[in-house]
Amino acid sequence: MTINANYQKLQSSYLFANIGRKVREYQAAHPGADVIRLGIGDVTRPLPAACVEAMHRAVNDMSRAETFVGYPTDAGIHFLEDAVAADYALRGVTLGIDEIFLSDGAKSDSGNIGDIFGTENVVAVCDPVYPVYVDTNIMAGRKITYLPCKADNGFAPPVPTEHADVVYLCSPNNPTGAAMDAVQLQAWVNWANEHGSVLLYDGAYEAFITEDLPRSIYEIPGARTCAIEFRSFSKTAGFTGVRCAYTIVPKELMTGGVSVNALWARRQATKFNGVSYITQRGAEATFTPEGRAQVQETVGYYLANARTIKTGLEAAGFRTWGGVNSPYVWFAAKGGMGSWELFDLLLNEVQVVGTPGSGFGPAGEGYFRLTGFGGAERTREAVERIQGRFG
Amino acid sequence: MTINANYQKLQSSYLFANIGRKVREYQAAHPGADVIRLGIGDVTRPLPAACVEAMHRAVNDMSRAETFVGYPTDAGIHFLEDAVAADYALRGVTLGIDEIFLSDGAKSDSGNIGDIFGTENVVAVCDPVYPVYVDTNIMAGRKITYLPCKADNGFAPPVPTEHADVVYLCSPNNPTGAAMDAVQLQAWVNWANEHGSVLLYDGAYEAFITEDLPRSIYEIPGARTCAIEFRSFSKTAGFTGVRCAYTIVPKELMTGGVSVNALWARRQATKFNGVSYITQRGAEATFTPEGRAQVQETVGYYLANARTIKTGLEAAGFRTWGGVNSPYVWFAAKGGMGSWELFDLLLNEVQVVGTPGSGFGPAGEGYFRLTGFGGAERTREAVERIQGRFG
Repeated sequence: MTINANYQKLQSSYLFANIGRKVREYQAAHPGADVIRLGIGDVTRPLPAACVEAMHRAVNDMSRAETFVGYPTDAGIHFLEDAVAADYALRGVTLGIDEIFLSDGAKSDSGNIGDIFGTENVVAVCDPVYPVYVDTNIMAGRKITYLPCKADNGFAPPVPTEHADVVYLCSPNNPTGAAMDAVQLQAWVNWANEHGSVLLYDGAYEAFITEDLPRSIYEIPGARTCAIEFRSFSKTAGFTGVRCAYTIVPKELMTGGVSVNALWARRQATKFNGVSYITQRGAEATFTPEGRAQVQETVGYYLANARTIKTGLEAAGFRTWGGVNSPYVWFAAKGGMGSWELFDLLLNEVQVVGTPGSGFGPAGEGYFRLTGFGGAERTREAVERIQGRFG
Repeated sequence: MTINANYQKLQSSYLFANIGRKVREYQAAHPGADVIRLGIGDVTRPLPAACVEAMHRAVNDMSRAETFVGYPTDAGIHFLEDAVAADYALRGVTLGIDEIFLSDGAKSDSGNIGDIFGTENVVAVCDPVYPVYVDTNIMAGRKITYLPCKADNGFAPPVPTEHADVVYLCSPNNPTGAAMDAVQLQAWVNWANEHGSVLLYDGAYEAFITEDLPRSIYEIPGARTCAIEFRSFSKTAGFTGVRCAYTIVPKELMTGGVSVNALWARRQATKFNGVSYITQRGAEATFTPEGRAQVQETVGYYLANARTIKTGLEAAGFRTWGGVNSPYVWFAAKGGMGSWELFDLLLNEVQVVGTPGSGFGPAGEGYFRLTGFGGAERTREAVERIQGRFG
């Protein structure tokens, strides 16, 4: 028996595991330290009340034979796909329910999607980048090229000059918080259609958009022939611990005469068995008027934190990006300091944990990410500590 | 962009999709027909009360910031792994919690596990076989060999004479209901250790074992160096619509000096984000005294149905297997009738839907599967109809 040798090419440990180890070591050496964590992108607010109520009802459904639901994929239910389609319709995007694939997470989907593509495809990712795009394609043995995103292009990637078959785009971006506008997205759609390439558009953070920007790649003419979109309830409705997402694969997306929609349908029917009925009912509730208002309140809470971080850092003389259409604030270290150097300084001197930009790729060196996903008071406290050190 | 060309080698439609189409067509032509479905292996009994209570409590936990749980993988929770380990300990099997990998389903895991193995491995499967083992390996481009399981070997596969790197074993078996004993399993473990092969042991139906047989491959000496085990809450606690399973990868399982446990840990950390906290609390409750009693009651209900089917078919002159340590009854058609021929006859003449054995592989031709997962009264009615036609 042989292993998948591509796994040997992976870096041996994961960014957040390294951060966790450093924090644990610090806390072991300083047991009384009051560490504030604004690192990993996990949410902290409770589920919206509408979701809680819907999930209680769904648990009750499962307690009676008359309303019990077995395999979600066989049950003939598609209330959540209907709700997703109606939500897209509000933005002028028409989707068939067989173009909407529910799943347990956008992370799973953005990795698993590679199953249906040949291993000879060249994959382009932004640098800095969400590590999952890179690692899952290394596991599959694909060649990866990087699209450097820098301050001078506003951390928005320009279309590549080199060949790329598959391109991951994440907007609003993790980690930089940059959100692409319609002109930028149209350039990508045109490029993809012209080159027969596929865009993998990660819209996990679309709910954080506050400015007049597209929320879906399908708002861009031509996207249905070249783009797959990932969405999630994790960062909108706080479902990181509940697990629900969806992926859109339009029927018009063909390659070599083969329907990519049909390939993904076959992949999911064979290697996945659907999303928990209880979870689906919770997710459905986010599209009710009460659910929408509650989600908006939670998103607003995180955006207010991001604003606190952004304005606080700028007052302390840091140059920042993101934090407007995104829960993430991306900022440049001062005086040529490296990302991990700043990580150690913030942990040791002011007990604030963030994420070193270099952990997301070489172009992230010298940058740092803080998130708005913490509590409001602790976020203010963290910013005050940083200002005290740098202000 | 190219697709994964292996997908073109898949059969164009899935067994249960074909059955569904035939049933829909029949019902459209006979709107008043009273069709009894004993085909697909989905459960019908409500969740155990202990699970329902635990899930209500968990939903409430998610409604308050103090008890809210985000990413399950980052939350540092392992109450369910602890409960699983304690359950194995009752059978004399010691597992570390880092050998227990929770997931959304044994179907996902039995397909995804291939990610960590080289595509050059030869995969052996039983014939007849659960289609997922075959399709997922075709998708990966692996060569598949078949181990014919027949009446004369009691539908238990003998160790192969030809080379095989990876072998899927399912016991109690889907579809035949055959359960392997300690002597048969020991022969497989010895063979795998001798040949450096890996056994993928699907124990999704272990709760249905009523005789004195091993319930885990790890009850067999030597299994920790050669076997991975899949388990599920789907058929025990009725979690087909809730989604929870676990896969055991022992630390001693090495290949070419590489830890298979470490590879799977890396695969899951990169392409999966953990199981819903609410689902985990429900699954945990199946290991409480009340939960165990309730699960046992449900399993007993399905086993009683299987007994009804088995004795009824035998009284009607059919030769049967399974139905004792399994919810599945496997039987031979009479008079040289083919599997699909019997399917059509049962649907058209007595309005009973089962699963044609040939849908599980060529060696299943001439056989048929009925499941004990229906309601008790409808199961009796179905058996009476078959007896009326054949008795």
